[in-house]
Amino acid sequence: MKIARYLPILDWGSRYNSTTLTNDGVAAIIVTIMLIPQSLAYAMLAGLPPEIGLYASILPLIAYAIFGTSRTLAVGPVAVVSLMTLTAASAIAPPGSADFIAAALVLALLSGLFLLLMGIFKLGFLANLLSHPVVSGFITASGIIIATSQLKSIFGIKASGAAMPELVSSIAATIGTTNIPTLIIGVSATAFLFWVRKGLKPLLMRIGLPARPAELIAKAGPIAAVAVSTIATIALGLEAKGVSVVGDIPQSLPPFSVPLIDLELWTTLAIPALLLSIIGFVESVSVGQTLAAKRRQRIDPDQELIGLGAANISAAFSGGYPVTGGFARSVVNFDAGAETPAAGAFTAIGIALAALFLTPLLASLPIATLAATIIVAVLSLVDLKTPLTIWRYSKADFAAMAATIGVTLLAGVEPGVIAGVGLSLALFLWRSSRPHAAIVGRVPESEHFRNVDRHKVFTDPRILTIRIDESLTYLNARWLEEFILEQVAEQKTVRHVILMCSAVNAIDASALESIEAINHRLDDGGISLHLSEVKGPVMDRLKRSHFLDQLSGKVYLSQNAAYSALIAIADNEDKADSPVDIWNARGLI
Amino acid sequence: MKIARYLPILDWGSRYNSTTLTNDGVAAIIVTIMLIPQSLAYAMLAGLPPEIGLYASILPLIAYAIFGTSRTLAVGPVAVVSLMTLTAASAIAPPGSADFIAAALVLALLSGLFLLLMGIFKLGFLANLLSHPVVSGFITASGIIIATSQLKSIFGIKASGAAMPELVSSIAATIGTTNIPTLIIGVSATAFLFWVRKGLKPLLMRIGLPARPAELIAKAGPIAAVAVSTIATIALGLEAKGVSVVGDIPQSLPPFSVPLIDLELWTTLAIPALLLSIIGFVESVSVGQTLAAKRRQRIDPDQELIGLGAANISAAFSGGYPVTGGFARSVVNFDAGAETPAAGAFTAIGIALAALFLTPLLASLPIATLAATIIVAVLSLVDLKTPLTIWRYSKADFAAMAATIGVTLLAGVEPGVIAGVGLSLALFLWRSSRPHAAIVGRVPESEHFRNVDRHKVFTDPRILTIRIDESLTYLNARWLEEFILEQVAEQKTVRHVILMCSAVNAIDASALESIEAINHRLDDGGISLHLSEVKGPVMDRLKRSHFLDQLSGKVYLSQNAAYSALIAIADNEDKADSPVDIWNARGLI
Repeated sequence: MKIARYLPILDWGSRYNSTTLTNDGVAAIIVTIMLIPQSLAYAMLAGLPPEIGLYASILPLIAYAIFGTSRTLAVGPVAVVSLMTLTAASAIAPPGSADFIAAALVLALLSGLFLLLMGIFKLGFLANLLSHPVVSGFITASGIIIATSQLKSIFGIKASGAAMPELVSSIAATIGTTNIPTLIIGVSATAFLFWVRKGLKPLLMRIGLPARPAELIAKAGPIAAVAVSTIATIALGLEAKGVSVVGDIPQSLPPFSVPLIDLELWTTLAIPALLLSIIGFVESVSVGQTLAAKRRQRIDPDQELIGLGAANISAAFSGGYPVTGGFARSVVNFDAGAETPAAGAFTAIGIALAALFLTPLLASLPIATLAATIIVAVLSLVDLKTPLTIWRYSKADFAAMAATIGVTLLAGVEPGVIAGVGLSLALFLWRSSRPHAAIVGRVPESEHFRNVDRHKVFTDPRILTIRIDESLTYLNARWLEEFILEQVAEQKTVRHVILMCSAVNAIDASALESIEAINHRLDDGGISLHLSEVKGPVMDRLKRSHFLDQLSGKVYLSQNAAYSALIAIADNEDKADSPVDIWNARGLI
Repeated sequence: MKIARYLPILDWGSRYNSTTLTNDGVAAIIVTIMLIPQSLAYAMLAGLPPEIGLYASILPLIAYAIFGTSRTLAVGPVAVVSLMTLTAASAIAPPGSADFIAAALVLALLSGLFLLLMGIFKLGFLANLLSHPVVSGFITASGIIIATSQLKSIFGIKASGAAMPELVSSIAATIGTTNIPTLIIGVSATAFLFWVRKGLKPLLMRIGLPARPAELIAKAGPIAAVAVSTIATIALGLEAKGVSVVGDIPQSLPPFSVPLIDLELWTTLAIPALLLSIIGFVESVSVGQTLAAKRRQRIDPDQELIGLGAANISAAFSGGYPVTGGFARSVVNFDAGAETPAAGAFTAIGIALAALFLTPLLASLPIATLAATIIVAVLSLVDLKTPLTIWRYSKADFAAMAATIGVTLLAGVEPGVIAGVGLSLALFLWRSSRPHAAIVGRVPESEHFRNVDRHKVFTDPRILTIRIDESLTYLNARWLEEFILEQVAEQKTVRHVILMCSAVNAIDASALESIEAINHRLDDGGISLHLSEVKGPVMDRLKRSHFLDQLSGKVYLSQNAAYSALIAIADNEDKADSPVDIWNARGLI
């Protein structure tokens, strides 16, 4: 049982048959065709030699097939994680250098270990810290940075930078050295890929193809761009005219690699690796959940952490770099009919064959073509509608999103994520520190109590009822003290305060301390504190403290009972002459 | 108006008369007598020359009298803040050195600026991050460290350390060098002060004194210990026998000092100063609120930040060190009848006179006597009952408290506070990420809906009602998706899901995204999603999104209406033959 929990392959593997084999095989062929140019392109985006993209698409896919729970998630290099790898490893060494490649391996290992540990200790909830506006803003800003960074390869210039200000000024400074043949290839490849994306499917459908095959053929557009631009480069001798090409790629299976064990390097890369793994996890899980729900399947986020962790660790030991589940390719895998994670393993075999036999054909592939595939892919990540929707829905969420986009664009990916998470958390804590509460009164001729500001209700000047609409925690405990004492200070006639606890699901130790303080302070001023509608579990816990012994008033089952009883007591008090009579009226003697 | 908000003195000053003057004057004399030995002792605890304690008790008191809102809070050096100053400044230079004193000034300036900024920007809610168990645990652990650290002066040995392991081993290593006359003074002063604390007041009351004067005379115990031990030291020539004494104290008013403007020093001290100011603020506000409530007065926490900020900034410019409101002396001030902050200003005059005229008398005061006053004062901070109470009440709160105590004792004050705040926050976020929710059914013959696990209720296998007992935020959005999809996966007969939102006070953008995803995923599986009892403000906000257009089901005003309508729809669906009929039954055509 225990082992099967960590090895989902035992579940689907036991029911594997020839039909699933056929379906998975077909899907694998289509994903392989899509993944070859993507792997090369994203490795280039990450500042790594192209073969590393292929290596990162072999063993990690097999590891995920064994440990992952999504039936259709396609794992491998993706754009945002590649950008994060570039940023983090650039802090160690210049892109492309041996130290840079070593840093990318360490990043894969560390993020794999983080994911694995989070999975084992069921810490997947940490990903909750990334709110939807933050993730959405981050992806949009990353998409803009990635697309801008690829302009250098489209123009054939040398520009660099991890955030927009550097990138733009660097492009502006070098635009004069544009290589015209490169620009022609880059622009036409980009235009072709945009057309493939938007226009090819309708065209294929017009000539009689059904929707799904038309869709899948359109996804093969990049491989066509690769083939045509490679042939053109060879035929026209464009390399001699200054067109940068991929160059020789070693013809081999992934090498066995051992990430450097270097404490200083690990310390430097720990935070980037953590951010990278959480961003990768959030993206991957949301793709996985969306696809699983379409077939009424479920994925297990904690086991997904283990699956992605295993994928990254295997990337670290097979010459790769950080990977995660990709959106576009997972959708293609799903649409192509993949039924089990075996499709991922078959894709790995396809990429391995490509690494062994196709690499010589890719030597003359222009880098501008790869840049075009990246630009077209990431511009679909740029989402300018969501900020508007969120602005209309919630200004606080918009603020978190705007901060993420702004800081990511101006300062880079890591500060961007940290700013977004920090601001979301600060806003959440701020909201939690001032919960909703209302002074309530009795709706005439009923037993219902409603907000005095919104309804015509009956209130007694001697009795103040405050309904708290949230659990009482240390974050709002001090607010509660201030709120109640302020209300009492404003209404000098009040002699009884009722806390209506119908919406209070928990009272933590700090809040209990505050309620005790409120009780004493009100008591010092001659005011009794009462509770009403306390929920069962909250009451059980209060009974374990001394609060109920010290409470100057009583706990009433219903607000109506409290109100009726206290009106009677107050009436008696009004007739009483001495404090003793008042205590008597309150049932304290 | 605006100015008066920031200058509470304008309020009480305008109503000042001769009665308040007399009352404040009497209180000031008593507090001055108490504060002289305390100021010297706490400066020594902070590793500073004794006169700095006196300086810190002059201008800061006047600044607080102008800007503070508590009528009776007595500001000055306190034990915990002194320990935090020692720890922070020790990272810069050895205690007592000129650089150390300069660092203490910078700490006062920085914490003053932090407090002032928090006050101006109304960020007092940040203090909420310190939960009651964390503050309580921190004070207890600090008390233990402080008392232990003073043993060195009681034994007349040279020991040091900022946390228990170092302190204890350092004391053990040097205990052989104990100075017997010092030990006799130290032990007898400690014993005398304990007796004064416990036994003097009952004795005075037995010989006929009323309770309040007896209490106040007992508070003067330390000044008696100071006088007697000083006289004994002079008379018996104990200084020559190795008894450490305070030594010459400059006979002067506070000097004008300018804290160093040194970016590196400021950066190093920023975090300690922030922690110190928040701890000081929390302590001060809780004392101030308790005393204010006894007279049905109010303090304004945001203005308190400004008052304490001004006090610390003035400490930085008058040769002092960080100050805050002290518990014991504020209670004495209150009991002695202080009516306005002018009592604090009069106390400052008293201390100034002491600094000018009494300092020569203090030269032969044994340090062991000051250590005894510190030990007796801080042992009252050590609270071993609260951990037990909290253990019974809440294991999570106990964990935060235990972590704070443990880390403070073992690693020191700053790691202790950070561990406590971090753990409290992590536990809060963890709890927030899995809110309470219940599957509910209809109570027979009623319109009420209750948890199926706790009540005998009616449920329809075709309809699943989930009541969410918390606001929906980004922290629990993913949980909500998983919870609902899991419930639906378990009950294959379900065709309608109702989210009962009676306890949902807010839905943020992430949660909205999740509900949209739930809606789509349920829809893909042929299940409609409905909402019931959505609160007004939540509904207003939902109307600003596209969610209601996409919702596969409907929004019902009451849960009962939802349930009845959906049973009827499900009955019609059961009679229907085609999907069109089902859509029709659902009112979608």
